[in-house]
Amino acid sequence: MLTFDFYNPTRIVFGKDRLKELNKLIPAEAKVLVLYGGGSVKKFGTLDKVRQALGERKVIEFGGIEPNPRFSTLMQAVEVVKRESIDFLLAVGGGSVMDGTKFITLASAYDGNAEDLLRCGFKPVPLTSALPIGTVVTLPATGSEMNSGGVISHQGGKYPVFSPLAFPQFSLLDPTLTFTLPPTQVANGVIDTFIHTVEQYVTIPAEGRFQDRTAEGILRTLIEIGKKTIDQPTDFDARANLMWCATNALNGLIGAGVPQDWSTHMIGHELTAMFGIDHAKTLAIVQPAVWTVRKEQKRAKLLQYAERVWDITEGEETTRIDQAIEKTRGFFEGLGVPTRLGAYGVTAEKIDDLVAALEKHGMTRLGETGEVTLEVSRRILEAAL
Amino acid sequence: MLTFDFYNPTRIVFGKDRLKELNKLIPAEAKVLVLYGGGSVKKFGTLDKVRQALGERKVIEFGGIEPNPRFSTLMQAVEVVKRESIDFLLAVGGGSVMDGTKFITLASAYDGNAEDLLRCGFKPVPLTSALPIGTVVTLPATGSEMNSGGVISHQGGKYPVFSPLAFPQFSLLDPTLTFTLPPTQVANGVIDTFIHTVEQYVTIPAEGRFQDRTAEGILRTLIEIGKKTIDQPTDFDARANLMWCATNALNGLIGAGVPQDWSTHMIGHELTAMFGIDHAKTLAIVQPAVWTVRKEQKRAKLLQYAERVWDITEGEETTRIDQAIEKTRGFFEGLGVPTRLGAYGVTAEKIDDLVAALEKHGMTRLGETGEVTLEVSRRILEAAL
Repeated sequence: MLTFDFYNPTRIVFGKDRLKELNKLIPAEAKVLVLYGGGSVKKFGTLDKVRQALGERKVIEFGGIEPNPRFSTLMQAVEVVKRESIDFLLAVGGGSVMDGTKFITLASAYDGNAEDLLRCGFKPVPLTSALPIGTVVTLPATGSEMNSGGVISHQGGKYPVFSPLAFPQFSLLDPTLTFTLPPTQVANGVIDTFIHTVEQYVTIPAEGRFQDRTAEGILRTLIEIGKKTIDQPTDFDARANLMWCATNALNGLIGAGVPQDWSTHMIGHELTAMFGIDHAKTLAIVQPAVWTVRKEQKRAKLLQYAERVWDITEGEETTRIDQAIEKTRGFFEGLGVPTRLGAYGVTAEKIDDLVAALEKHGMTRLGETGEVTLEVSRRILEAAL
Repeated sequence: MLTFDFYNPTRIVFGKDRLKELNKLIPAEAKVLVLYGGGSVKKFGTLDKVRQALGERKVIEFGGIEPNPRFSTLMQAVEVVKRESIDFLLAVGGGSVMDGTKFITLASAYDGNAEDLLRCGFKPVPLTSALPIGTVVTLPATGSEMNSGGVISHQGGKYPVFSPLAFPQFSLLDPTLTFTLPPTQVANGVIDTFIHTVEQYVTIPAEGRFQDRTAEGILRTLIEIGKKTIDQPTDFDARANLMWCATNALNGLIGAGVPQDWSTHMIGHELTAMFGIDHAKTLAIVQPAVWTVRKEQKRAKLLQYAERVWDITEGEETTRIDQAIEKTRGFFEGLGVPTRLGAYGVTAEKIDDLVAALEKHGMTRLGETGEVTLEVSRRILEAAL
């Protein structure tokens, strides 16, 4: 097992009808900025319930945080935070709203040019305090509700931003608040959770037995309930299992003490930036291709994945690996998500541009061992055609 | 899935040669009370290394915290804390030292009679602040390093004490510090971790798929590495896996949102109190008997346990359950731990006394559904003969 630190102070408040508890989770005297995305939290009444729970507190709303939240949008919220002397930020939404809210609290506390914060990469931003945040999760997918990072879009790039100050103080997870999600977003959530898990699991062996088994547990759960929670959106237990898996897939637990890949995410980010393809769909495209191209480097873990997640134990090793990749592809396609670039209108001619974008963003040594050079990324994109 | 809250702010610092980081984990100006048990942390040099890492800080030592730490011993440490105006408590040891240190910080902050704190049961003790604690774990077993509870012995009883203030601020887990443990203590650690896990898993179905799979992952890991880490005490990865499983078995993760049993622990406590049998050994005695007696109530989860942990899929349901119980018993015995009361010199005539002790301590409705009455406990003890 590798050396690691694990720290996660976010309080999870999980279950039906818990929105009213916002009243005790947020200080009584706090002036609250409630942040959200499009209109669905208004349309389905979540925002009303949130305001009701907040009672007599002074509340200001900031809506319109878009998918892949943009620096320029978030900086408008930073102005509101400063102008209105906000004490507490409450994100009501999915990963974009939560990621955006994290950036807003950090940028509000930062004295310099907030663009600096986009250049810290995976290092914590240079801050020692920031306003507390809480979240009400309406889309189970990114795990942002229980980690300290976010991804911010700016001028055609996607930038990771991290800080221990960005851990939500609490996250309220009520599966029933997600019942109204459109099927495509639920499918995205299943795939996002799946890929978060394999990015930390299908790497190279490192004797992280607890981590491996826990990752496999998330994957098997997603395979068991993925289709069901799309087809039967009001099945509480299926949705609850998706929601809790999504959180645990990216709260640091399964990645502690083991190598991590993340090349699928980095290549996927370019697809989103260039073609506007949903984040999760880019992952469904890139992941099978990464495995196809890096079959040898990931052989041991792909065989473990084939056996423990898909019960594939017969046949030649390479055949088992190929079967596991096909099973994975079939799982994603079965959720209604195509796994080939062509299905999204992206053709071979665009690969040069994508590789150039990876180079521009410094993505020249990706993967658990840094072996995913631009040349390997090119082969991955070709395998995804 | 059941409604739950999950909160665990303890920072885990895991890996080889990390003791020197105590210097940055504990405030520079803190006056530190270092607490430990018997002499092994002195004998094997851990205490020296701790003092070296603490540098110029004022350090006072309090040794002699015994297994099943006693109220009277701990109250002596409380006096030291008050008299010396201690700022930080550092536990160096296993579960007893950590549990004891938690109680010491709480009792030091409590104005009334500290015996009151023993009467809170599983409710948090009535306190709003307490001195911070850190731990250096030398025995992987109880999970105390990453939870908010402890068990304190007083006048023949064992009392749970809980408080969010008892979460260690950090816990330093260096598997190499455990290499010098005697085999019997390692075996106890494996069994303690195993039983912590099944107390939260072999109950009744509740659609906690992530929790179940994670619990099964811990159990399979223990079965894989349990014997090895006793026979090859300096195998880093085996010990690291035991250590990280022990922590995760009782940090709230696998028990969140699912029913919990704990009858094995409560009955086992009486065996420790009355006959001085090691805590883990009492669990190895009681757990198979609980399953034997409550086979019907736990049927669904026992079948799941048989299949997913022991790969038992053939034969009648009852046969599969019996096989799983025997496999479990065989696993414990294979670690050198007898699983029958007789092996510890406890005979049938003592059962009346044990049942009376359970009654005296209010243990009349145990188990995940409260069905373990005194009469059921009696049958469990009989099955353990």
